[in-house]
Amino acid sequence: MLEVNGLYTDHYELTMAQGYYLSGKYKFNACFDYFFRKNPFKGGYVVFTGLTDLLEVIKNFRFTRENQDYLKEIGFDNVFIEYLNDFVLRGNIYAPDEGDIVFPNEPVIVVEGNLLETQVVETVLLNMINFQSLIATKASRMRQSAGKRMLLDFGLRRAQGFGGIHASRAAIIGGFGGTSNVFSAKQYQLVSTGTMAHSWVQSYPTELEAFRDFAKYYPDQCILLVDTYDTLKTGIPNTIKVARELEENGAKLAGIRLDSGDLGYLSKQAREILDENGLDYVKIFVSNQLDEYLIKSLIDQNAPVDGFGVGTKLVTGGDDAALDGVYKLTVFNNKPQMKISDNLEKMTLPGKKNILRFYDRNDMYYGDAVILEEEKEIDIMYHPYQPSKYCDFKNYRNERLLKKVMENGEILLPPGTTKEIADYVIERLSMLPDEHKRFENPHIYKVGISKKLMDLRNKLVEVIKSDY
Amino acid sequence: MLEVNGLYTDHYELTMAQGYYLSGKYKFNACFDYFFRKNPFKGGYVVFTGLTDLLEVIKNFRFTRENQDYLKEIGFDNVFIEYLNDFVLRGNIYAPDEGDIVFPNEPVIVVEGNLLETQVVETVLLNMINFQSLIATKASRMRQSAGKRMLLDFGLRRAQGFGGIHASRAAIIGGFGGTSNVFSAKQYQLVSTGTMAHSWVQSYPTELEAFRDFAKYYPDQCILLVDTYDTLKTGIPNTIKVARELEENGAKLAGIRLDSGDLGYLSKQAREILDENGLDYVKIFVSNQLDEYLIKSLIDQNAPVDGFGVGTKLVTGGDDAALDGVYKLTVFNNKPQMKISDNLEKMTLPGKKNILRFYDRNDMYYGDAVILEEEKEIDIMYHPYQPSKYCDFKNYRNERLLKKVMENGEILLPPGTTKEIADYVIERLSMLPDEHKRFENPHIYKVGISKKLMDLRNKLVEVIKSDY
Repeated sequence: MLEVNGLYTDHYELTMAQGYYLSGKYKFNACFDYFFRKNPFKGGYVVFTGLTDLLEVIKNFRFTRENQDYLKEIGFDNVFIEYLNDFVLRGNIYAPDEGDIVFPNEPVIVVEGNLLETQVVETVLLNMINFQSLIATKASRMRQSAGKRMLLDFGLRRAQGFGGIHASRAAIIGGFGGTSNVFSAKQYQLVSTGTMAHSWVQSYPTELEAFRDFAKYYPDQCILLVDTYDTLKTGIPNTIKVARELEENGAKLAGIRLDSGDLGYLSKQAREILDENGLDYVKIFVSNQLDEYLIKSLIDQNAPVDGFGVGTKLVTGGDDAALDGVYKLTVFNNKPQMKISDNLEKMTLPGKKNILRFYDRNDMYYGDAVILEEEKEIDIMYHPYQPSKYCDFKNYRNERLLKKVMENGEILLPPGTTKEIADYVIERLSMLPDEHKRFENPHIYKVGISKKLMDLRNKLVEVIKSDY
Repeated sequence: MLEVNGLYTDHYELTMAQGYYLSGKYKFNACFDYFFRKNPFKGGYVVFTGLTDLLEVIKNFRFTRENQDYLKEIGFDNVFIEYLNDFVLRGNIYAPDEGDIVFPNEPVIVVEGNLLETQVVETVLLNMINFQSLIATKASRMRQSAGKRMLLDFGLRRAQGFGGIHASRAAIIGGFGGTSNVFSAKQYQLVSTGTMAHSWVQSYPTELEAFRDFAKYYPDQCILLVDTYDTLKTGIPNTIKVARELEENGAKLAGIRLDSGDLGYLSKQAREILDENGLDYVKIFVSNQLDEYLIKSLIDQNAPVDGFGVGTKLVTGGDDAALDGVYKLTVFNNKPQMKISDNLEKMTLPGKKNILRFYDRNDMYYGDAVILEEEKEIDIMYHPYQPSKYCDFKNYRNERLLKKVMENGEILLPPGTTKEIADYVIERLSMLPDEHKRFENPHIYKVGISKKLMDLRNKLVEVIKSDY
């Protein structure tokens, strides 16, 4: 696994840490919330992903001797660097199970510990959770479009550098069936897959020889790329010849891949010709700048596509290349903290909190209430900024979403496999009503706050404003 | 440095490699071109970046024993895996100097070697060059907007996972003055920088105490974040008090940072009040969802901003999250190769090639001619698809852009420092006429082909089509 160390952080985390250390404030306890303000892709939800990697990184987040020398070189104080020698997050982390569905303006991760430690992990937490959650969410949208059809991640070549490593994991968690990325496949026990590029075909005198040779080496997993010269004039006719030859040897051609041209038209033509030749078992895969909308469009056109290879728009998120997650102080020295703002939506929620997720009578998600950790049950949830709007939850089943996943710096549970997390995404997404999943103007999922939290916040706003 | 290995590739590279090995074809020589088809950001150019990292990765691109075991496990052939044990790219690579300005549809990198080796490096080459070039290009656009003002990369928290490591390097190469990313700063000898978050201020009973304590620990590099409560009501008045106290101790407050609200209005107000209080030396930094357009807009409004902190839109590329670079076979077994297509623009250019860059009489870039490597000089360059359009270059100075940077797998030149490469970008961009640099409908830079290349291509198209 690629390892990062204590320097994988924003410089200001260390500047603040040094200040906290020198002033002695670092020993006081603190609590931070990770949350995001806006769903990506104009969608209605986020698939919470990246927790396993994050906990692993935090557990090993150390300042090596070499790191310490570097910090000395760029001006940090010897006494502080001495402290970093033993640095480790000794705090607690609370989060939903990886793969759960989460929403804007609720505390998705709560980090608790001493002020210095909880501050210093900010950057790496944001870096890992923002990205993997973005990509798993994108992948889940493509899965929605694709239904039961195969989805393959082909994105490594267009990934943002080493970001490709986590992108492929997140793609599988969000619903993809396999990846081209062998590095991530090994690291995360994913299924990797791939057959040929145009260069394979070009390196033979004829397309037929290229297909024949590939079938010779891969008789049982042979997917032919048919668009190097002309899909319908040469690619499909040569496919038929090779499929026949495989049949003579007791094997079956697995499929063809279309990588250019009008994928709707070509897949229909190819299907027809293959079927006429008794090759109805040969699957059709397509690739080329796909996203959830193009996949949906192909299916709406009844394009007989069995699988989609998706690259750029999957592993980068396409138009929305970042989830806007932030990390805000909520408790310091046992006192609740908040950031106020002229903009109501930018105020943060004070105190150590949890989420109660309420289910409707069909056992579907109905709404999430942000509560103070000390609260057990609530009946009424208020709109965060319009107290006249509220929901009565009497008799609604609920569950507490944030569980302790790290205690005193130790990971509490063995991580789930990628497959288990992917299955959990399916389970949890099935409980989210469809209107929150549609692409166009999805219904906004209700996230409210408890009376106690509202009162605490309003009181704090008064106190802070009176201090001006 | 984070290391990747031979598995950092698409599965199909290995499937093809195994086929080439088993068939014995792998020994034949091959040449591949890396090129892109479209400038990102609707812009007029790309800053070629990532070469140093790429060469380093390729030089160390090995299949460890553990990798080999994994490949065996997922079904690769023992004989092939044995070959991978000694795998190393023994080929040659040709490229422009890192930091040069390049354009669509010209061969930016040429990789030459045996078929297997040149194929297998495809994914890692695309992964590293596409991304770093994208980000350096984005950064250079922000540099254009910012003029001489300070630009700082604050993006690690929104970067695409470990993509943040290379993003910060590319940001500096494209024109940024510093980064918050300490990990990359150490790895690439960048300047890292950072002061405080809102949490610093919140962890004190009052904003004034927070500012005072920070000034105590960082008297010479004190930049105060002034928007935790109310920028004009508390942030600036408290700044003035702390600046006075610093003055009494012989130090000077470095600056303030605005991170919310209307940055144009607030920077003007803050400047005025600071100046009225004799604090005209205190600099104003701003951050919050900036990009090249917002930076330009602030400057057009005469906002008195001394420096910009840029995050998400810089390190992800924003709307354009990938450069569409591809890698195509151009020579196999000493014979030129090309991929034809119904779409003229998607045809590739056959043969081992180079680029002649022609300068106009003012010594500015005039046009790039793609030539066959064997050609020395040309006078006339043709439009790639409209032979009636051509340029006569008699008496135009030119230079040959692609130089050998790797020979038999050895890196030929010691890498430039990031600073040297960044300086080179400035030098080369200064030779690109302004009309190619503007944001709105930039003038398309001329990239044409030589007569010999055109003839070769046309002949090959005939041969390929006659084979149908």
